[in-house]
Amino acid sequence: MKYTTKSITVRYGETDQMRFVHHSNYFKYFELARLEWLSKMNISYAQMEKEGILMPVVKASIIYKTPLFFGDTFRVVVTLNRVPKATLEFSYQIINQNNKIICTGNTVLAFLSQKKKLPMRCPNFLLEKFN
Amino acid sequence: MKYTTKSITVRYGETDQMRFVHHSNYFKYFELARLEWLSKMNISYAQMEKEGILMPVVKASIIYKTPLFFGDTFRVVVTLNRVPKATLEFSYQIINQNNKIICTGNTVLAFLSQKKKLPMRCPNFLLEKFN
Amino acid sequence: MKYTTKSITVRYGETDQMRFVHHSNYFKYFELARLEWLSKMNISYAQMEKEGILMPVVKASIIYKTPLFFGDTFRVVVTLNRVPKATLEFSYQIINQNNKIICTGNTVLAFLSQKKKLPMRCPNFLLEKFN
Amino acid sequence: MKYTTKSITVRYGETDQMRFVHHSNYFKYFELARLEWLSKMNISYAQMEKEGILMPVVKASIIYKTPLFFGDTFRVVVTLNRVPKATLEFSYQIINQNNKIICTGNTVLAFLSQKKKLPMRCPNFLLEKFN
Repeated sequence: MKYTTKSITVRYGETDQMRFVHHSNYFKYFELARLEWLSKMNISYAQMEKEGILMPVVKASIIYKTPLFFGDTFRVVVTLNRVPKATLEFSYQIINQNNKIICTGNTVLAFLSQKKKLPMRCPNFLLEKFN
Repeated sequence: MKYTTKSITVRYGETDQMRFVHHSNYFKYFELARLEWLSKMNISYAQMEKEGILMPVVKASIIYKTPLFFGDTFRVVVTLNRVPKATLEFSYQIINQNNKIICTGNTVLAFLSQKKKLPMRCPNFLLEKFN
Repeated sequence: MKYTTKSITVRYGETDQMRFVHHSNYFKYFELARLEWLSKMNISYAQMEKEGILMPVVKASIIYKTPLFFGDTFRVVVTLNRVPKATLEFSYQIINQNNKIICTGNTVLAFLSQKKKLPMRCPNFLLEKFN
Repeated sequence: MKYTTKSITVRYGETDQMRFVHHSNYFKYFELARLEWLSKMNISYAQMEKEGILMPVVKASIIYKTPLFFGDTFRVVVTLNRVPKATLEFSYQIINQNNKIICTGNTVLAFLSQKKKLPMRCPNFLLEKFN
C-alpha cells in the first residue's frame, strides 16, 4: 500500500530565516500526502469529519537529511504500514526534483468519536478500502 | 476604547527567509490582541463559539513601516473604532521594544450564527460590555 | 497584465476551529500566486534574492466574501495594476471550484537592497519583462 | 539541566478544524522553549546566526496524549539530555493549566557552518555554558 503525491512546490512563507523550510512544515506535507491519498481512494476525510469521525495524530517522528528550499519541488511517498485496527500507521519519504531524499518520517493516527470524545475502532468502510 | 497587550516575543518560526517576520503573521498578532482584550473584559470568545456565535474577519488591511525581527518584543495597541451593530471595527498599532511603530492595521469582524450560517447582530451582552 | 494560477487544494492545516481557512492564509495564497506568475515569466525570485534584491510587502488589504473550506480547490487571478517604479501593485481574486469569488485583495511590494537595507527602484530586467 | 518556560496562551490561529491545536504547532512550542532557555542563559541564538552558526533540527519525535485547546495556557519543560558534542539533544513535556501532560517529545539539533554549509562541532562558548 503505497502512494506518491503529485509534485508540490515549496512556498515562500514555508521558509524561515535559516533560509530553508521550517522543520514543522514537513508534518504538514505528510498530512496533505495522506489526505490526497485518501481522496484518490474516494475516501473523503471532510465527509468522515461531518459524520463525527476524527483522525488525530497521536505519534509522529521525522529524520531530516537535507533541507528543502524555496522554489524546490517535491513529492511525498506515503506507505500504510499495516492494516489498521485502532490506529493507522503511515510512513513517509519526501523526495525533491533531483530524486534526493529530503526526510523520512512516521505518523500514527487514531480514530476519535467527536460526540463521545472517545477513541473508536477503524470504521468498516475504511477497512474494506484498505483490504 | 483602547487596549495594549502585554509584551510578546517574536518566535523563530514566524520569520521567513527575508530574515524578518512573514507579512501574514501580523494578522495573527492583531487577532491575539483583540482576543486578549475580550478576555480581559471577561468575554470568552471560546464560550461565544460554543454558543454558536462566530466572529469571522470580513475585511482587513495593513501598512508595514519597518520589520519585526526574531527576538524582538512588541506590544499591540488595539482600538475599537465604534460601538458595534452588525460589525466590529478594530484598528491596531504594533510597537516594538524601542517604541518604534512597526505597522498599523484595521480589521472588520462580522457576527455569524453557526447554526443558520447567517450574519447576525452584535449580541446584547457584548454591546453592554462595550458601552 | 493578468495571470491565473493552476488549481490549488486547501490544506487541512490551513483551517482553524471556525472550520474554514484562517484569514491570514489568504495572504499566503496571494504570495504564491504572484511568485508563480514571476516564475512563469522566467523571473526567479529566488535568484533575485541571491543577488540581494528583496521584495517585501509594504501594504496589503483584503475583503472576504465567503470562506474556503478544507478540500475546496481554488485559483488566484493576479493583476499587475501599473508598470512599476518604486513599488509593484498587484490585485487578486480568489475563485473556488464553483466559480464563486471567495475574496479580493491588493498588495503593494517595495524593492529593497539587502546590503544597503535601503529601498531601491525596480530593477531594469523586471521593467523590461513587464513592458 | 532543565528549564520551564513562562506560561503561554494557545492562539486562535494555532487550532485547526478538529477544534484543537494542529499537531505541527507543538514543534513550534518546543522551539520557542529551547530558544527562551538559551536566551535566559545569555546565549543569543540571533547573534549565533549572525556569526554564521546555524542550529537546524535533524531529528524530532512527539507523543500526543491529550489536546491543547484555544485559550488553554501551558508551560514547556525542556531538558538537555547530555552535554553536546556534534549535536544537542533536548526532550520536552508540555503541561497545561491543570498540570495535565499534553505531550512529550524529543529533538536533536546539529551545528551547521553557514559559510561552509558543513556540520561543525558545538562551539566552545556553548559547551562552557552547559558545563
